[in-house]
Amino acid sequence: MGSDLSNPLDYLFYPRSIAVIGASSTPGKWGFNILNRLVASSLQASIYPVHRSADEVQGRRAYRSLSEISGPIDLAIIAVPSEEVPKAMQECASKSVKVAIIITAGFKETGQVGAQLESEVLKIAKSGGVRIVGPNCMGHFNTAIDLFTTDEWGVSPGCLALISQSGNLGGYILQHAADRGIGFSKYVSSGNEADLTIEDYLEYLSRDEQTQVICAYVESIKDGRRFFDIAQRTCRRKPIVVLKIGRSAEGARAALSHTGALSGSDAVHDAAFRQSGVIRVEEADHLIDVGLALIRQPLPRGRRVGIVTVGGGFGAVAADACRRYGLEVPPLSQDTIQTLNKYLPPRWSHSNPVDMAGVVEGSYGCIGNLLKADYIDAVLAIGTVGFPVESDGESPAQIYARRMADAEVQLVDGLIQRIYQYKKPVIVTTPVGRGKSPAIAKLEEHEIYAYQNPEAGVRVISHLAKYADYLGVAGS
Amino acid sequence: MGSDLSNPLDYLFYPRSIAVIGASSTPGKWGFNILNRLVASSLQASIYPVHRSADEVQGRRAYRSLSEISGPIDLAIIAVPSEEVPKAMQECASKSVKVAIIITAGFKETGQVGAQLESEVLKIAKSGGVRIVGPNCMGHFNTAIDLFTTDEWGVSPGCLALISQSGNLGGYILQHAADRGIGFSKYVSSGNEADLTIEDYLEYLSRDEQTQVICAYVESIKDGRRFFDIAQRTCRRKPIVVLKIGRSAEGARAALSHTGALSGSDAVHDAAFRQSGVIRVEEADHLIDVGLALIRQPLPRGRRVGIVTVGGGFGAVAADACRRYGLEVPPLSQDTIQTLNKYLPPRWSHSNPVDMAGVVEGSYGCIGNLLKADYIDAVLAIGTVGFPVESDGESPAQIYARRMADAEVQLVDGLIQRIYQYKKPVIVTTPVGRGKSPAIAKLEEHEIYAYQNPEAGVRVISHLAKYADYLGVAGS
Repeated sequence: MGSDLSNPLDYLFYPRSIAVIGASSTPGKWGFNILNRLVASSLQASIYPVHRSADEVQGRRAYRSLSEISGPIDLAIIAVPSEEVPKAMQECASKSVKVAIIITAGFKETGQVGAQLESEVLKIAKSGGVRIVGPNCMGHFNTAIDLFTTDEWGVSPGCLALISQSGNLGGYILQHAADRGIGFSKYVSSGNEADLTIEDYLEYLSRDEQTQVICAYVESIKDGRRFFDIAQRTCRRKPIVVLKIGRSAEGARAALSHTGALSGSDAVHDAAFRQSGVIRVEEADHLIDVGLALIRQPLPRGRRVGIVTVGGGFGAVAADACRRYGLEVPPLSQDTIQTLNKYLPPRWSHSNPVDMAGVVEGSYGCIGNLLKADYIDAVLAIGTVGFPVESDGESPAQIYARRMADAEVQLVDGLIQRIYQYKKPVIVTTPVGRGKSPAIAKLEEHEIYAYQNPEAGVRVISHLAKYADYLGVAGS
Repeated sequence: MGSDLSNPLDYLFYPRSIAVIGASSTPGKWGFNILNRLVASSLQASIYPVHRSADEVQGRRAYRSLSEISGPIDLAIIAVPSEEVPKAMQECASKSVKVAIIITAGFKETGQVGAQLESEVLKIAKSGGVRIVGPNCMGHFNTAIDLFTTDEWGVSPGCLALISQSGNLGGYILQHAADRGIGFSKYVSSGNEADLTIEDYLEYLSRDEQTQVICAYVESIKDGRRFFDIAQRTCRRKPIVVLKIGRSAEGARAALSHTGALSGSDAVHDAAFRQSGVIRVEEADHLIDVGLALIRQPLPRGRRVGIVTVGGGFGAVAADACRRYGLEVPPLSQDTIQTLNKYLPPRWSHSNPVDMAGVVEGSYGCIGNLLKADYIDAVLAIGTVGFPVESDGESPAQIYARRMADAEVQLVDGLIQRIYQYKKPVIVTTPVGRGKSPAIAKLEEHEIYAYQNPEAGVRVISHLAKYADYLGVAGS
């Protein structure tokens, strides 16, 4: 925990003192929200509101300028109109602020005039040794010390990190993940990247002990060689999952007017991602889906999936999706069929997908035995794990549901043990959330996360298999 | 409402009397859940528990056999072990029951012996004029009269119908939709289709006044000619959305052991779907996503999408997805740019996607003006509609959020009016659920539904455009 402050990004993520330039008492303004959150936090840092005319902001003493503050400032957050940013940066430079986050937009992304303003601000920053996050960004966080210069979205501490070249998309991803109870280590909205770039954040997070998996939304990469060098060095011990747009001319044009970024040839990027072991996903929701599975699940040694399903429809849909995503659904051996007969009602499918025909009691036994089979590399369990508790009512049905759910929790430890014993991933999909199933909640405490639908589960396995292939886990 | 009972399916959906054969007092059993739900409902029908030995089930008088019941029985639900089904069906035949739902599994889907049992049961049913739903199915519902022979999942009345050849997948789809507050008219889990088939249900629903859009999960079609004839006749006035598996050999094998269905050549099905105007989707979640948009949204006359976004990242992701799904994101005309300048801050993107750069106040004006542009066929609004109200607290931020959200509600009527005036769809995506945004709640009251992520919105527009193309709306 903490840091020795040898890297400028240490001051960004572990600041001892923070100035909010443009602090405001008006709800809805950035300078309101950021100060409000900082003050309400358990963060051990001095917080200084800076306002050009007010003596107090949100009931706290405000400073007219940084020079009025007696101690040093590690981190300044700038949320003033764009034309006032050069003056604010001049104060930062004079005060030897270590890092400044420029929330303000209206720079390179707006065209020539904005680009000139951005150059001017960068020059001032360099003169005082100030490193810049942004401009045109939406802050950052470090859950380890309860530091948020962005919205909070109910995010809890965890081991995923997110870098986003879009503050809004980053916020969407974080909010959606937080709603699922998924924790994060660090986040940064990198904006126009006038100074610090995604390469810098990637390098920092590659060494960050709280971060086990790095997720990134990428519109453009300035120094491709450096990015892919860092990625290649990192991804053998810490996976990197990327949503990179620019597959289309339209997407590239949108990125240009968004952060002023030229997104480059997609084919080149695609090849570079593959060669450096970066996992590339197609949609925003897939970023966290895949990231979650990389926290604790073993990697599959091949593409052969055993499917255990509560009902045949799920199995058929999943088998179809396996084909679309380049995975195999191998037939069961006679040995496996005979073993599974012990756990299943006579009418089970006797084939892969293993359709339990609605009787889920034998589910954990089936999963365990599929993990044991040498021709299965990963198991997908659809609706057979996570018996729902709908309410705490006292009707016979409600009491029955709680009894079933409690009985299931006893089996979770054994399942987790088998995942590591056989070193194969088990991807659980269930329409039931963790709030409704004690078994899912327990699995997620152990960082084995559940997905909502079979297709998401299949997609995740396909990414794990590709990554394993890159690392040479396959066939080992 | 109701029916003249001229069709056997009228007795399934509007029964005046229902017998539950295999009614049970043991929670978790089908015979418990079904009776429990029927008795708790507001359904105006006589309910008769049938049990081979008990005098009472769930505190109600039970009958040893159908023959003990004095009045006629429109609908029997059979939930006894498979070996007892022939006897139960014999009772139904003797009693001239109109329709029997056989929940019980263990028939054709289990192999030769089960197939023989299924033939025997079918023969008995035919001898008494009893029509069969199932076997190996999970019931049905008709929300118009609060009739549920399946789980309830919190489903409310609405105008989507669902036919599912998998009870589990049907349940998943319904539960997920109900969680989003989406209503349904009728549902049937068709199981092995020993007698009544998906063709019968499709034909019935094509004439059902409560149903505006028919969604179906399909593993196999017995009478392809009839299915596609009905589909072609229906889909000009009532859209049909299908998730059909069997794209892979694995999926086909899973379907065979699931409902004993041979799923046929996928290429043939795909062509037939296209020729008959059926909208085919790829994943279970897409079925309802697309169905919802067909309830009330006008169809686009082409593939040109105007994107209005709260932030550039969303716009870039959506533009990329448009390309993947065969949609265009045309440049804005100078006229449009000048008009939008009135609604937007100076730093807006000045191009399509229209990046509002975080200032969403002009959102409704922008959407209206894009609808007006003759080179735009559909509008995708990402994060610019649906200001979230996080709580009813009294902090300045919470009061501000409520004020913003209340102001927005006033604009919803105008938006709905413009959708119909210009006859172009507006697809809203927002991570904020209807529970948190009064504007989204109001839109959904008018059956304009919101989606969670930009990619889902793009996918929906692409399906609307294909369907419009089929109907000849395009270019009109």
